[in-house]
Amino acid sequence: MPVKTMDDLFLHTLKDVLNAEKQVLRTLPKMAGKTSSPELKEAFDTHRVETEGQIERLQEVFELLDKRAQGKPCAAMEGLVEESKEAMEEIEDPEVLDAALLSGAQAVEHYEIARYGTLISWAKQLGLNDAVNLLGQNLDEEKKTDLLLTKLALAAVNQKAA
Amino acid sequence: MPVKTMDDLFLHTLKDVLNAEKQVLRTLPKMAGKTSSPELKEAFDTHRVETEGQIERLQEVFELLDKRAQGKPCAAMEGLVEESKEAMEEIEDPEVLDAALLSGAQAVEHYEIARYGTLISWAKQLGLNDAVNLLGQNLDEEKKTDLLLTKLALAAVNQKAA
Repeated sequence: MPVKTMDDLFLHTLKDVLNAEKQVLRTLPKMAGKTSSPELKEAFDTHRVETEGQIERLQEVFELLDKRAQGKPCAAMEGLVEESKEAMEEIEDPEVLDAALLSGAQAVEHYEIARYGTLISWAKQLGLNDAVNLLGQNLDEEKKTDLLLTKLALAAVNQKAA
Repeated sequence: MPVKTMDDLFLHTLKDVLNAEKQVLRTLPKMAGKTSSPELKEAFDTHRVETEGQIERLQEVFELLDKRAQGKPCAAMEGLVEESKEAMEEIEDPEVLDAALLSGAQAVEHYEIARYGTLISWAKQLGLNDAVNLLGQNLDEEKKTDLLLTKLALAAVNQKAA
């Protein structure tokens, strides 16, 4: 489907983000199963549940547009997930693996924060107020998750520096 | 090279970021050549010059570690760049293309902001104070660029909504 208008671009990016969130949903349980940190496991488990809700909100946005909720392969998220998979396969030291998993999760959150920021801005421009609200809820959750991951990362660094 | 220690993970991620910045350096002139917005062209041109300086700082960090400044393929950035390339090939409407280029550039900045945040945190943990300083300069530039892109995106949206 060629992208000719802002409506097309919005739908195109919505499909990208739906696919990205589904990739995240498949990866978080693997990350939760690999970490040796109870706090990090809880963060991954909590965010998995949140991601399910975020996918539902994205599906509602497709409904608002009267379009089928169909993803399109998101190459950026494939790359991000690939990096975390490699870390899980290759790193044996639990402390080093946790640092890599935290870092990978933060890169994922930043990608999503950028994408939701863009989608909200375009939804405003297109007058899609209900979509602005739904996407805003997803953005708030991603920002909250990023802050939690940053807190865990700093706590790990400070513990080791002490 | 297997990642066994935090030093290995730091070096591994530094190589990832060096490759990512080199990909950005190759892509920015193409984006600058495709946009019809003088402000966006200036932002891409300015950030290209900044990216050259950032690559030099990364090379200094490799020197501090006494390692060869060699990148390793960064799949996440390949995906991000691929999305912008597709937009440049497929989108004909100049306004829609500019929106896509802005969005792609913001996703790139967010990836780099996440990665530099991680590297700085690990450099502190490893006592690499000179690296903290160099990487901090790169992070500040990425944040400044993201703010400028956000300002341009909002200006475009407000102009069209008016």
